[in-house]
Amino acid sequence: MSTKGLLLIGHGSKKPYNKELVEETARVIGMTDENFIVKSGFMSINEPSVEEQLDAFRSEEIEALVVVPLFLAKGVHILKDIPDILGLPEGQYRGTFRLNGRDVPLVYAQPIGSDPLLAELMLKNAYQAIDDLL
Amino acid sequence: MSTKGLLLIGHGSKKPYNKELVEETARVIGMTDENFIVKSGFMSINEPSVEEQLDAFRSEEIEALVVVPLFLAKGVHILKDIPDILGLPEGQYRGTFRLNGRDVPLVYAQPIGSDPLLAELMLKNAYQAIDDLL
Repeated sequence: MSTKGLLLIGHGSKKPYNKELVEETARVIGMTDENFIVKSGFMSINEPSVEEQLDAFRSEEIEALVVVPLFLAKGVHILKDIPDILGLPEGQYRGTFRLNGRDVPLVYAQPIGSDPLLAELMLKNAYQAIDDLL
Repeated sequence: MSTKGLLLIGHGSKKPYNKELVEETARVIGMTDENFIVKSGFMSINEPSVEEQLDAFRSEEIEALVVVPLFLAKGVHILKDIPDILGLPEGQYRGTFRLNGRDVPLVYAQPIGSDPLLAELMLKNAYQAIDDLL
Protein backbone atom coordinates (compact mmCIF):
# COMPACT_ATOMS: atom_id res chain seq x y z
CA MET A 1 0.00 0.00 0.00
CA SER A 2 1.29 3.46 -0.82
CA THR A 3 1.77 6.01 1.92
CA LYS A 4 -1.36 7.79 3.04
CA GLY A 5 -1.92 10.64 5.44
CA LEU A 6 -4.12 10.02 8.47
CA LEU A 7 -5.44 13.09 10.26
CA LEU A 8 -6.93 12.20 13.63
CA ILE A 9 -9.32 14.93 14.78
CA GLY A 10 -10.04 15.54 18.45
CA HIS A 11 -12.67 17.71 20.10
CA GLY A 12 -10.28 19.70 22.29
CA SER A 13 -10.79 20.61 25.94
CA LYS A 14 -9.68 23.15 28.54
CA LYS A 15 -8.45 20.20 30.60
CA PRO A 16 -5.39 18.36 29.26
CA TYR A 17 -7.00 14.89 29.04
CA ASN A 18 -8.66 15.04 25.61
CA LYS A 19 -5.47 16.30 23.98
CA GLU A 20 -3.42 13.60 25.72
CA LEU A 21 -5.88 10.93 24.59
CA VAL A 22 -5.88 12.08 20.96
CA GLU A 23 -2.10 12.50 20.70
CA GLU A 24 -1.40 9.18 22.41
CA THR A 25 -3.88 7.42 20.11
CA ALA A 26 -2.23 9.04 17.07
CA ARG A 27 1.17 7.86 18.33
CA VAL A 28 -0.08 4.26 18.74
CA ILE A 29 -1.66 4.31 15.26
CA GLY A 30 1.64 5.52 13.78
CA MET A 31 3.57 2.77 15.57
CA THR A 32 1.04 0.11 14.54
CA ASP A 33 0.68 0.82 10.85
CA GLU A 34 3.56 2.11 8.73
CA ASN A 35 1.27 2.77 5.77
CA PHE A 36 0.20 6.02 7.37
CA ILE A 37 1.82 9.34 8.17
CA VAL A 38 -0.25 10.31 11.22
CA LYS A 39 -0.97 13.81 12.54
CA SER A 40 -3.57 15.01 15.03
CA GLY A 41 -5.49 18.28 15.18
CA PHE A 42 -8.28 19.79 17.27
CA MET A 43 -11.65 21.40 16.61
CA SER A 44 -11.37 23.88 19.46
CA ILE A 45 -9.24 25.13 22.36
CA ASN A 46 -6.17 22.94 21.77
CA GLU A 47 -3.39 23.35 19.22
CA PRO A 48 -2.58 22.46 16.49
CA SER A 49 -5.89 23.12 14.79
CA VAL A 50 -7.35 20.90 12.07
CA GLU A 51 -6.62 23.64 9.51
CA GLU A 52 -2.96 23.86 10.56
CA GLN A 53 -2.53 20.11 10.23
CA LEU A 54 -4.20 20.04 6.81
CA ASP A 55 -1.64 22.63 5.70
CA ALA A 56 1.15 20.52 7.19
CA PHE A 57 0.00 17.57 5.04
CA ARG A 58 0.21 19.58 1.81
CA SER A 59 3.97 19.14 1.65
CA GLU A 60 3.94 15.41 2.50
CA GLU A 61 4.46 12.68 -0.11
CA ILE A 62 1.05 11.07 0.34
CA GLU A 63 -1.21 9.37 -2.17
CA ALA A 64 -4.44 10.01 -0.23
CA LEU A 65 -5.62 11.67 2.97
CA VAL A 66 -7.87 9.86 5.45
CA VAL A 67 -9.56 12.06 8.06
CA VAL A 68 -10.62 10.12 11.16
CA PRO A 69 -12.65 11.82 13.92
CA LEU A 70 -11.89 10.59 17.44
CA PHE A 71 -15.46 11.24 18.56
CA LEU A 72 -17.89 8.77 20.09
CA ALA A 73 -20.86 9.55 17.88
CA LYS A 74 -22.13 11.82 15.15
CA GLY A 75 -23.05 15.33 16.25
CA VAL A 76 -22.71 18.85 14.86
CA HIS A 77 -18.90 18.68 14.65
CA ILE A 78 -19.05 15.42 12.69
CA LEU A 79 -21.98 16.27 10.45
CA LYS A 80 -21.28 19.92 9.70
CA ASP A 81 -18.16 21.57 11.15
CA ILE A 82 -15.58 19.05 9.95
CA PRO A 83 -17.12 18.65 6.46
CA ASP A 84 -17.08 22.46 6.17
CA ILE A 85 -13.34 22.55 6.92
CA LEU A 86 -12.68 19.70 4.47
CA GLY A 87 -14.77 21.32 1.74
CA LEU A 88 -17.17 18.37 1.68
CA PRO A 89 -20.90 18.90 1.17
CA GLU A 90 -22.89 17.56 4.15
CA GLY A 91 -23.44 13.81 3.83
CA GLN A 92 -20.53 13.32 1.41
CA TYR A 93 -17.47 11.37 2.54
CA ARG A 94 -15.15 11.59 -0.47
CA GLY A 95 -13.42 14.61 -1.91
CA THR A 96 -10.09 15.93 -3.06
CA PHE A 97 -7.14 17.22 -1.10
CA ARG A 98 -4.82 19.78 -2.67
CA LEU A 99 -1.15 19.02 -2.11
CA ASN A 100 1.61 21.33 -3.33
CA GLY A 101 1.14 20.89 -7.05
CA ARG A 102 -1.34 18.03 -7.33
CA ASP A 103 -4.64 16.65 -6.01
CA VAL A 104 -5.07 13.39 -4.11
CA PRO A 105 -8.25 11.65 -2.92
CA LEU A 106 -9.60 12.60 0.51
CA VAL A 107 -11.86 10.30 2.52
CA TYR A 108 -13.68 11.15 5.72
CA ALA A 109 -14.13 8.22 8.12
CA GLN A 110 -16.91 7.57 10.63
CA PRO A 111 -16.64 8.29 14.37
CA ILE A 112 -16.50 5.38 16.81
CA GLY A 113 -20.22 4.53 16.87
CA SER A 114 -21.70 1.34 18.31
CA ASP A 115 -19.07 -1.32 18.39
CA PRO A 116 -18.66 -4.48 20.50
CA LEU A 117 -15.14 -3.22 21.34
CA LEU A 118 -16.74 -0.26 23.08
CA ALA A 119 -18.85 -2.50 25.34
CA GLU A 120 -15.67 -4.47 26.06
CA LEU A 121 -13.84 -1.28 27.06
CA MET A 122 -16.70 -0.24 29.38
CA LEU A 123 -16.75 -3.65 31.07
CA LYS A 124 -12.99 -3.48 31.53
CA ASN A 125 -13.35 -0.11 33.27
CA ALA A 126 -16.22 -1.43 35.41
CA TYR A 127 -14.18 -4.42 36.61
CA GLN A 128 -11.15 -2.22 37.22
CA ALA A 129 -13.28 0.00 39.49
CA ILE A 130 -14.66 -3.06 41.34
CA ASP A 131 -11.14 -4.43 41.83
CA ASP A 132 -10.07 -1.09 43.29
CA LEU A 133 -12.97 -1.40 45.77
CA LEU A 134 -12.02 -4.85 47.06
CA MET B 1 -20.25 -12.92 41.80
CA SER B 2 -23.36 -11.35 43.27
CA THR B 3 -25.57 -9.12 41.17
CA LYS B 4 -24.36 -5.57 40.76
CA GLY B 5 -25.91 -2.54 39.15
CA LEU B 6 -24.09 -0.91 36.26
CA LEU B 7 -25.13 2.62 35.37
CA LEU B 8 -23.71 3.68 32.01
CA ILE B 9 -23.66 7.48 31.73
CA GLY B 10 -23.82 9.24 28.38
CA HIS B 11 -23.28 12.90 27.51
CA GLY B 12 -26.56 13.37 25.65
CA SER B 13 -27.05 15.23 22.36
CA LYS B 14 -29.72 17.02 20.35
CA LYS B 15 -28.99 14.54 17.57
CA PRO B 16 -30.08 10.93 18.17
CA TYR B 17 -26.65 9.32 17.72
CA ASN B 18 -25.16 9.69 21.21
CA LYS B 19 -28.29 8.23 22.82
CA GLU B 20 -28.31 5.34 20.33
CA LEU B 21 -24.64 4.65 21.01
CA VAL B 22 -25.06 4.65 24.80
CA GLU B 23 -28.21 2.52 24.81
CA GLU B 24 -26.81 0.01 22.33
CA THR B 25 -23.59 -0.28 24.36
CA ALA B 26 -25.65 -0.82 27.56
CA ARG B 27 -27.62 -3.53 25.76
CA VAL B 28 -24.44 -5.33 24.65
CA ILE B 29 -22.95 -5.11 28.16
CA GLY B 30 -26.13 -6.63 29.60
CA MET B 31 -26.06 -9.46 27.06
CA THR B 32 -22.34 -10.09 27.62
CA ASP B 33 -22.21 -10.19 31.42
CA GLU B 34 -25.06 -11.57 33.51
CA ASN B 35 -23.46 -10.31 36.73
CA PHE B 36 -24.81 -6.84 36.01
CA ILE B 37 -28.21 -5.22 35.89
CA VAL B 38 -27.48 -2.48 33.33
CA LYS B 39 -29.22 0.87 32.93
CA SER B 40 -28.18 3.98 31.02
CA GLY B 41 -28.77 7.65 31.81
CA PHE B 42 -27.74 11.01 30.36
CA MET B 43 -26.11 14.18 31.67
CA SER B 44 -28.11 16.50 29.47
CA ILE B 45 -30.78 16.79 26.77
CA ASN B 46 -31.72 13.07 26.56
CA GLU B 47 -33.92 11.04 28.91
CA PRO B 48 -33.76 9.23 31.26
CA SER B 49 -31.48 11.41 33.35
CA VAL B 50 -28.73 10.04 35.58
CA GLU B 51 -30.79 11.00 38.64
CA GLU B 52 -33.85 9.12 37.36
CA GLN B 53 -31.80 5.98 36.77
CA LEU B 54 -30.17 6.18 40.21
CA ASP B 55 -33.69 6.25 41.66
CA ALA B 56 -34.65 3.27 39.49
CA PHE B 57 -31.72 1.30 40.98
CA ARG B 58 -32.89 1.91 44.56
CA SER B 59 -35.51 -0.82 44.30
CA GLU B 60 -33.20 -3.36 42.62
CA GLU B 61 -31.67 -6.32 44.46
CA ILE B 62 -28.07 -5.29 43.93
CA GLU B 63 -25.02 -5.70 46.14
CA ALA B 64 -23.11 -2.75 44.71
CA LEU B 65 -23.49 -0.04 42.10
CA VAL B 66 -20.82 0.62 39.46
CA VAL B 67 -21.12 3.92 37.60
CA VAL B 68 -19.34 3.89 34.22
CA PRO B 69 -19.06 7.06 32.12
CA LEU B 70 -19.18 6.50 28.36
CA PHE B 71 -16.92 9.48 27.72
CA LEU B 72 -13.62 9.55 25.86
CA ALA B 73 -11.62 11.46 28.43
CA LYS B 74 -11.85 13.32 31.72
CA GLY B 75 -13.44 16.74 31.55
CA VAL B 76 -15.80 18.82 33.68
CA HIS B 77 -18.62 16.24 33.54
CA ILE B 78 -16.29 13.48 34.68
CA LEU B 79 -14.35 15.45 37.31
CA LYS B 80 -17.14 17.53 38.81
CA ASP B 81 -20.71 17.12 37.54
CA ILE B 82 -21.03 13.34 37.88
CA PRO B 83 -19.27 13.21 41.30
CA ASP B 84 -21.69 15.94 42.48
CA ILE B 85 -24.70 13.83 41.46
CA LEU B 86 -23.22 10.74 43.10
CA GLY B 87 -22.38 12.61 46.30
CA LEU B 88 -18.67 11.91 45.88
CA PRO B 89 -16.08 14.54 46.81
CA GLU B 90 -13.95 15.49 43.77
CA GLY B 91 -11.12 12.98 43.28
CA GLN B 92 -12.87 10.23 45.26
CA TYR B 93 -14.11 7.11 43.46
CA ARG B 94 -15.79 5.12 46.21
CA GLY B 95 -18.90 5.91 48.18
CA THR B 96 -22.22 4.53 49.31
CA PHE B 97 -25.47 4.10 47.46
CA ARG B 98 -28.75 4.18 49.37
CA LEU B 99 -31.15 1.44 48.34
CA ASN B 100 -34.63 1.13 49.82
CA GLY B 101 -33.68 0.20 53.39
CA ARG B 102 -29.95 -0.41 53.17
CA ASP B 103 -26.64 0.94 51.87
CA VAL B 104 -24.42 -0.76 49.31
CA PRO B 105 -20.97 0.23 48.00
CA LEU B 106 -20.79 2.59 45.04
CA VAL B 107 -17.78 2.77 42.73
CA TYR B 108 -17.16 5.30 40.00
CA ALA B 109 -15.18 3.98 37.03
CA GLN B 110 -12.84 5.83 34.67
CA PRO B 111 -13.80 7.06 31.20
CA ILE B 112 -12.28 5.38 28.14
CA GLY B 113 -8.89 7.09 28.19
CA SER B 114 -5.86 5.99 26.19
CA ASP B 115 -6.22 2.36 25.27
CA PRO B 116 -4.73 0.26 22.46
CA LEU B 117 -8.31 -0.82 21.64
CA LEU B 118 -9.09 2.80 20.78
CA ALA B 119 -6.23 2.99 18.26
CA GLU B 120 -7.51 -0.29 16.82
CA LEU B 121 -11.02 1.15 16.44
CA MET B 122 -9.66 4.27 14.68
CA LEU B 123 -7.61 2.18 12.25
CA LYS B 124 -10.67 0.03 11.53
CA ASN B 125 -12.66 3.16 10.66
CA ALA B 126 -9.79 4.50 8.52
CA TYR B 127 -9.59 1.28 6.47
CA GLN B 128 -13.37 1.15 6.14
CA ALA B 129 -13.31 4.66 4.65
CA ILE B 130 -10.48 3.68 2.26
CA ASP B 131 -12.39 0.56 1.17
CA ASP B 132 -15.43 2.71 0.44
CA LEU B 133 -13.19 4.88 -1.78
CA LEU B 134 -11.90 2.00 -3.92
